[in-house]
Amino acid sequence: MAGTPTTGDLLRVPAGVVDLSAVATDATPGFGHGKSAGRAALAELGEELADLQERLFAEGRSGGSRRVLLVLQGMDTSGKGGTLRRTVGLVDPQGVRITSFKAPTEEERAHDFLWRIERALPGAGYLGVFDRSHYEDVLIARVRGLAPAEELERRYDAIIDFERRLVESGTTLVKVMLHISADEQKERLLARLDDPAKHWKFNPGDIDERAHWPAYREAYEIALERTSTEAAPWYVVPADRKWYRDLAVGRLLLEALRGLDPQWPAADFDVTHERARLTGEEPVA
Amino acid sequence: MAGTPTTGDLLRVPAGVVDLSAVATDATPGFGHGKSAGRAALAELGEELADLQERLFAEGRSGGSRRVLLVLQGMDTSGKGGTLRRTVGLVDPQGVRITSFKAPTEEERAHDFLWRIERALPGAGYLGVFDRSHYEDVLIARVRGLAPAEELERRYDAIIDFERRLVESGTTLVKVMLHISADEQKERLLARLDDPAKHWKFNPGDIDERAHWPAYREAYEIALERTSTEAAPWYVVPADRKWYRDLAVGRLLLEALRGLDPQWPAADFDVTHERARLTGEEPVA
Repeated sequence: MAGTPTTGDLLRVPAGVVDLSAVATDATPGFGHGKSAGRAALAELGEELADLQERLFAEGRSGGSRRVLLVLQGMDTSGKGGTLRRTVGLVDPQGVRITSFKAPTEEERAHDFLWRIERALPGAGYLGVFDRSHYEDVLIARVRGLAPAEELERRYDAIIDFERRLVESGTTLVKVMLHISADEQKERLLARLDDPAKHWKFNPGDIDERAHWPAYREAYEIALERTSTEAAPWYVVPADRKWYRDLAVGRLLLEALRGLDPQWPAADFDVTHERARLTGEEPVA
Repeated sequence: MAGTPTTGDLLRVPAGVVDLSAVATDATPGFGHGKSAGRAALAELGEELADLQERLFAEGRSGGSRRVLLVLQGMDTSGKGGTLRRTVGLVDPQGVRITSFKAPTEEERAHDFLWRIERALPGAGYLGVFDRSHYEDVLIARVRGLAPAEELERRYDAIIDFERRLVESGTTLVKVMLHISADEQKERLLARLDDPAKHWKFNPGDIDERAHWPAYREAYEIALERTSTEAAPWYVVPADRKWYRDLAVGRLLLEALRGLDPQWPAADFDVTHERARLTGEEPVA
């Protein structure tokens, strides 16, 4: 698949200070072609993605415990839903578990912030997807002052421990920040206002949140700095161009699955014997 | 979409005695063309299906309470999973909730048989899919004697009441039996044995179950007779031909969604005002 971006082309968040303003939101790193070639590359990649996902699912049904969890974060309109539809939509929906996290309910707020996350984790063999995640608890929580400073500090550390446990117990984590510019967001919000079929996606509060854009950027930078680990790294995907965003996330999923290299489970029965039983049986009415 | 089967072409189970042996498993009622035309018709239908599903989802996010529940039943290898991948796979996975029901767990057995069903119902705006369902509790339960006769009787009536409540509270039920022949099942089991990539789907117990084929047919006939109601009718879909099976189920889903005729929700904000706020705002860093 020459010409598609590889994991190495995307910004794997390194140790140290993160400066999101230095990452172009409209770039297409690792892909020198345009939109139609990008869409074609994603479709091409889809076949291998679907095959690997089915193998992982088969493994999970045959005693395996490995699973994949895609964590999608990004500002409003950054395209979490669209990415999901176009990349995760390439594989069999039976092997997918999608959770969209909203503002926590009263019951959820009565527990630690990771309680509802734990309950939404994918089972063996599944591809789990979080549309927003436990990171909201150090993003909006920080920007809107929903938690005191020492609680935020506790959460970064708790996330690192939590994710290490997930990885050690068989989960491959793919953490993606969809990175758009404020200008691109404005265009997308205007597009929602101008299309009655998109009004349901618009919330006047989205405009109010824009006043906090620098604070959100800083909150993302801190979260990426604190929680991008060897076991569970963050990737920053330029997301102003939707086709590139989809292709990049598809590629990250593909490389995660390739890394697992799931194999069709061996038969736990005698194939010859079962074949003989079936061909030699009395006619079934 | 001339030439695709309509709901009227499929066997909507009527009141009275059901005789499954009189329903051809390899027929293609309502569709006079072959496989490639059938696959093309499904793809064509997919666009409208995806659009209507998104409208229903939007409605659910905007205060609506309607939802759709597809119940798939059928013998082993009848293609519940394949149907699901090819029809439900046509719509945005974010609006879908799939549940595959296995043998009940100890906790589930400690409750009434509808307890786990209730917990798996789709929320407002969702397309729920049951791969097997509460009907197992009157099918395998009857064939294998897992419940006494009076308990089975209670269950038929309980199902009717339960489904009536679902319908009255906004659920459109699409109940489908995938109807294959014993010979076709044999071919499919042999295909699973002959392909190492399909061994994980094979269970030696599936061959043992074949000895109970007539008992299963009778159990299906009784279940269809007892629980096909005006509010929640059963459809019998000839399923020996996979392409026809997929097309027919896709068509049933499409007609269910057309019947709901979901509309894009009206804006609950002043579009002109929000547009002015957005275009007139101070530049966002």
